[in-house]
Order: sequence, then structure tokens, then C-alpha cells
Amino acid sequence: MNNFEYYNPVKIVFGKDQLTKLPELISPNAKKIMLTYGGGSVIKTGLLDKIKNSLSDYQLIEFGGILPNPQYDKLMQGVELAKSEQVDFLLAVGGGSVIDGTKFMAAAIHHPTDPWNMLAKREAIVDTTAFGCVLTLPATGSEMNAFSVVSKGNEKIGFGGDPRLYAKFSILDPTITYTLPEKQLGNGIVDAFVHVTEQYLTQDINTPIQDRMAEGILKTLIEEGPKVIELKDDYDSRANYMWATTCALNGLIGVGVIHDWSTHMIGHNLTALYGIDHARTLALVLPSLLRYQKESKKHKLLMFAKNVWGIEGKTPEQRIEMAINKTEDFFNSLGVPTKLKAYKLDEKDIDQLIESLAPILQTGLGENRDINAIKAKEILMGAL
Amino acid sequence: MNNFEYYNPVKIVFGKDQLTKLPELISPNAKKIMLTYGGGSVIKTGLLDKIKNSLSDYQLIEFGGILPNPQYDKLMQGVELAKSEQVDFLLAVGGGSVIDGTKFMAAAIHHPTDPWNMLAKREAIVDTTAFGCVLTLPATGSEMNAFSVVSKGNEKIGFGGDPRLYAKFSILDPTITYTLPEKQLGNGIVDAFVHVTEQYLTQDINTPIQDRMAEGILKTLIEEGPKVIELKDDYDSRANYMWATTCALNGLIGVGVIHDWSTHMIGHNLTALYGIDHARTLALVLPSLLRYQKESKKHKLLMFAKNVWGIEGKTPEQRIEMAINKTEDFFNSLGVPTKLKAYKLDEKDIDQLIESLAPILQTGLGENRDINAIKAKEILMGAL
Repeated sequence: MNNFEYYNPVKIVFGKDQLTKLPELISPNAKKIMLTYGGGSVIKTGLLDKIKNSLSDYQLIEFGGILPNPQYDKLMQGVELAKSEQVDFLLAVGGGSVIDGTKFMAAAIHHPTDPWNMLAKREAIVDTTAFGCVLTLPATGSEMNAFSVVSKGNEKIGFGGDPRLYAKFSILDPTITYTLPEKQLGNGIVDAFVHVTEQYLTQDINTPIQDRMAEGILKTLIEEGPKVIELKDDYDSRANYMWATTCALNGLIGVGVIHDWSTHMIGHNLTALYGIDHARTLALVLPSLLRYQKESKKHKLLMFAKNVWGIEGKTPEQRIEMAINKTEDFFNSLGVPTKLKAYKLDEKDIDQLIESLAPILQTGLGENRDINAIKAKEILMGAL
Repeated sequence: MNNFEYYNPVKIVFGKDQLTKLPELISPNAKKIMLTYGGGSVIKTGLLDKIKNSLSDYQLIEFGGILPNPQYDKLMQGVELAKSEQVDFLLAVGGGSVIDGTKFMAAAIHHPTDPWNMLAKREAIVDTTAFGCVLTLPATGSEMNAFSVVSKGNEKIGFGGDPRLYAKFSILDPTITYTLPEKQLGNGIVDAFVHVTEQYLTQDINTPIQDRMAEGILKTLIEEGPKVIELKDDYDSRANYMWATTCALNGLIGVGVIHDWSTHMIGHNLTALYGIDHARTLALVLPSLLRYQKESKKHKLLMFAKNVWGIEGKTPEQRIEMAINKTEDFFNSLGVPTKLKAYKLDEKDIDQLIESLAPILQTGLGENRDINAIKAKEILMGAL
């Protein structure tokens, strides 16, 4: 096991009707809250009104329209609004994009130079406005980690790591997911699945606690996923799915292990160039990437085959191939395609994608930094 | 899954040589630190000197002699010392008893009435002195939870739950465990194992994430346990054992599930009456308790048999019996007896024990509150 530090002070408030606890969760000295949300589904479902009613003791302002892959320019409008209104608490009501955007705003409000420098020049955060979350779309884990991704035009920029970017609390009510469309549910399951594999399918350095926890999350997603898609209001499967997505990226399965975020790195540019949903890009990259990294990930892929998919017998090579095929079948069964042709992309598009990835491919992606432009093209050609 | 809240802000600093980070982990405004420790092994191993050298920028005082089952009267001496010396940070260097005692002192220093009322009358904590931990004996999980057990004479009193009873940080260096005697290692493994079963072997309410994590910790203890006992300086097995004991009781596997702490409740009085080590009392109670609660714990016991012990085939009844036998064999293999006769206790002692448990047996122990005096006697007779 590698040395590690783990610190995660987010208060999780999980379950039915937990929204009633919202007023007492807000920092006691907060007076003016900015509610942040996305494209408006929280208005349609009545959730926003419910929240506004429960927070009638506070001054409230709203900042909606934070869309998937939250744009820097849009978020800066929110920063200006929060500053001019002297907001002292932010409440993100939404999924990963709303929460990611809110984290950026929480820090940008206090940044003494151009907040763009926090992204482009990695300038350290100076201070943050406290924030909380009401999660509507289980997927990214942003509600219980200190990371965020912000977009500027076609560029997606990772941001975070500072402990002040943890939410003060996150309310996770599985019944809030009942109104989600199938596509978002499928995306959420795949997103969480790949978050786990990027912390688990790397080099084996003898970390059984983390490995068994990772396998537990993957098995839960595999078992609960179909129920989540088929049953619109089955509390148990929604609860298990919701908690699985949070545990997939709250840091615990990632302590002391080797990470490989190359699927995310390649996927980000697939979103930037072709507008494919974040989770859907991961389903395109992961299976082919695993096939091309079979040797370096051999130990863990065999562990994955046995402990997650229950595959035994045959040759190690065959067990690995079966596990990758089963993963691909699972994504497809959720309505999430695993081939680029589903988006009408061909070799020409792959070349464009590789070009856009040139700066990071030069230093090499993957836990062994061995995914260069040539290998990345092989991986993507394998996903055609 | 039941509704739950989860909040755990302890910063874990895990690995070789992490003690070098100690000075920067102390609260920046602390000036005077009280080092708390146990019977003196930290002096013999040189650990205390190492810590004192690294904290030479602070004023230091010492309060040693906090023995297993920390006594209220002893701890109150520490409280008086900390108050008269105007200590503003406590550093626990030890195992569960030292940390538990330090938690109590942290709150007692600030208690406006007699601190005994925090235990006897459950008076709420008013404030705490911040504290950190350097863990020397992986077992109780106290380094990453907000609970504590304090003894007054023969009475063991649980205390805690207030978020101010979380350590600011806990340093977990597996190499510090190299000097531990076999008996303490065996005890530590059993203690953690039973912490997990008391959150896992209850009623099945569809909580796969928690169940798979619990099973992962149990499997790790089963696999690493023998290596921990046999190999004195094998880093990997010590690291996995250490992390397993922390994860066993940091709250995460306990969210949203039904608990049954009856093995601990009965065990506490075995310690109080006969001076048997805490973990050793758990090994005496658990196997027999599981046999007598076979029906109500049936689903989970079958899960335990299959997922933890790999037992398949035969009748459900036989699989459960095999799983309990294997658990018992595992404890014995660690040098931890599972029968009362190992301590020369007989039916007369059981009767005395039952009598001492009368107040809690009246309301009933176990997740179904069905362990009364008659059943408790059956369970203990099964452990003769």
C-alpha cells in the first residue's frame, strides 16, 4: 500500500424526507443564500419551490442555467451576482455539473486576481464561500469530494483538491431520482462504474481493503443498475445506486492505490469536440483501453474477472476478455453505447481527437505513462 | 436501507515515516501540548522521545499510565493537570484505551459541572480541547470515530457521539506495530472482526454497499491475520491489518444498516468482573451468540458463509454452522480462546455475570431486543 492522507468532512444526510433537515444544515451565521441549479428540471419537479419554502427564514437569490460541462463565462456571471448581492452561502440543487460549477464559484468569489488564473495557472484558492448540496442526479460523486471540472469553450479543466472545496453537507434523497429520464440514469451508473475502475484496474500493490470496497461498488452497480432503469420508483435500488455513486468517488477506495484516469482524460476531449455526454465518452474509451492495457493491468483484470463478474476456469487471457466483454455488454444494456459509430465518428475524427490530446499524450497517459499518441489511436480505433 | 447521517472529519495520515508530518498537523494556534500515553511501552520503544523531539517548538507536558479500560479517577488526574497547565492540545500516543481516555479528558476539561455527569447522567458536552492521535495498537477504531469507553471501578460506560470528539488527525504508521506482542496483535484482529460483525450480522435490509465493504474487511482480517502473527516486520500485512481495523469502526460500514452490539455489551461485563482483555471477551461471546441467534440472523449468516468463508452446497443450517465454526477456529488460530473454560469460568460465574447484566437484559439486547436473562444464560452456557 502506498502512503496516503484522507480527509473528507462532508456531512452526508441520506434518505427519504431528509430535505426537512435543510434549514438546520445551513451555516448558522448565513443570511443570504444563492440557490444554484441547472436547466430547470428542478423547477418543473417542484423541488426548487419546496427548497425555497423550507428556507423562508433566509434571504434567497437564484442562479439557474448551469448546464452540463459548466462554462467558465456562465459561472463568472454567478460570481458577479453573488458578490453584488453579498451572498454568504451557496446551495447547489442539481447533479455533478451544478455542484462542480458551484465549487468553482465558491472559490472565485474570493479570488483576488482574475479567477481564470485558478484554472489556467493553478493559482491556489484564497478562500471560499461555504456551500451545501441537494443532489438530484447520482453520478459524479462531486457531492462528497473536493474536485470539479469547468469548461471554457471546448476545453475542460480539472480544478480542486483544496479541502475548502468540500460541501458542508449533501442531502441525498433517493426519491428525488424518481423523475430522472432513463438516459441520465444510465449515464450515472456508467460514470460511477468508471470512477471505480480508474482507481481499481491499475497495478496490484496489495491493497485488499480498497479492492474489496471497489468490487463491492461495481457489483452493486451491476446488480442494481437494471432495476434502476426498469423500476421507476423502487426505493431500495435507487438508494443503493445513489450511495454507490457517492462511494465511487469520495476518495476512500482511492487511498493508497495507483490511479489511472486516462479514460477520463480522453473522454473529456470527446465531450469537448463532439458534445457527447461525459459518461457516454467513458463507455466508449474504457473497454478498448482495457484491451490494449491487458498486460500491465493483468493482475487486477483477473481479480476483476473473478470477484466482480464471477468468471473462473479457462485461460487467464480468456477470463480477462470475458470480463471486458461483460463490462461492455453491461454498458450497452443500460442504453449507453460503447462504439464510436453510434455517434457517427470515424478514423478522421479519431485523428482530430488525438491532435487535441497532443499536449497530454506527449507526457503519456495511464499509470505507466505509456499511452502516447500511437497507442491512443490504437485504443480509439478499437472502439470504432 | 435506513436513513442515515454520516460525518467524519478525522484526517488520516497513513504510512511509513508519516510521523515527520506531526508538527504541521497540530492546530496552528496550539502552544502547550499534553502527551497522553499508556503503561510505558512508548517510552521503551523510543516512540515518545521521537515525538518529543519532533515537537520541540511546543511546550510539552506528559500524562502517562492510562491503562486498558481507562479509569475515570485516573483520567480526572489528567484533566486537573491539563487545566492547571493550561494545555491547549492533547496528543494521544497509544491504542484504543489511551485514545478513549484522551477523548474523555478533552471534554471533561471544559465541563462546567462534575464531569462524571457526562457519563452517569449523559450530560451534553460543552466544549473540547482539540486532540490528535499517533496510533500504536490497531484494534478499536477509536482513532477515526467519536466514541469512547471509560471505566469507573467495575463499570464500563460508553461515551461519545458528539462530533467534537473526533480527533483532528490520526497518524497510522504500520511500522510502529512491529514491536507489538503477539497477544495484542491477536486481540486487535479479533476486536476489529467483531466490530464488523456487529454492524453486518443483523437483519438484511438490502444494503449491498455496506455489506460488501464489511465482507471486504472481514476477508482482509482473515487473510492478513496469520501473516500479522507470523511475520514480525512484513509491511504489507501490517498496513492492511491497520487500515482494516480503522475501517471496521469509522462508521462507514454502519450507515443505514441495523446494528447489534450485544456481544460488546456482554463482553464489557466479562472484562469488568474477571479482568479478561476486551477483545478476548468478544471471542468468548460471539460464536455462541450467533448460534443462538441463527434464526433472526439467517439471511446475513448465509451471506457471511458464502461471501466471507466461501462456503457453498449442503443445507443452509449446515452452511451457517460451518461459518460459525470457521470463525471460532480463526479466533483460536490467533491465540484468542473462544471458551470460558480457558479462563476457568463456570456456571456460577455465568450466573454472576447475568446478574451484573440485569439492568440491560431487562430491556433486551440484540437488534430485536430478544436477548433477555434466560437467553443470555443459554448463550454463555454455550461458551463454557
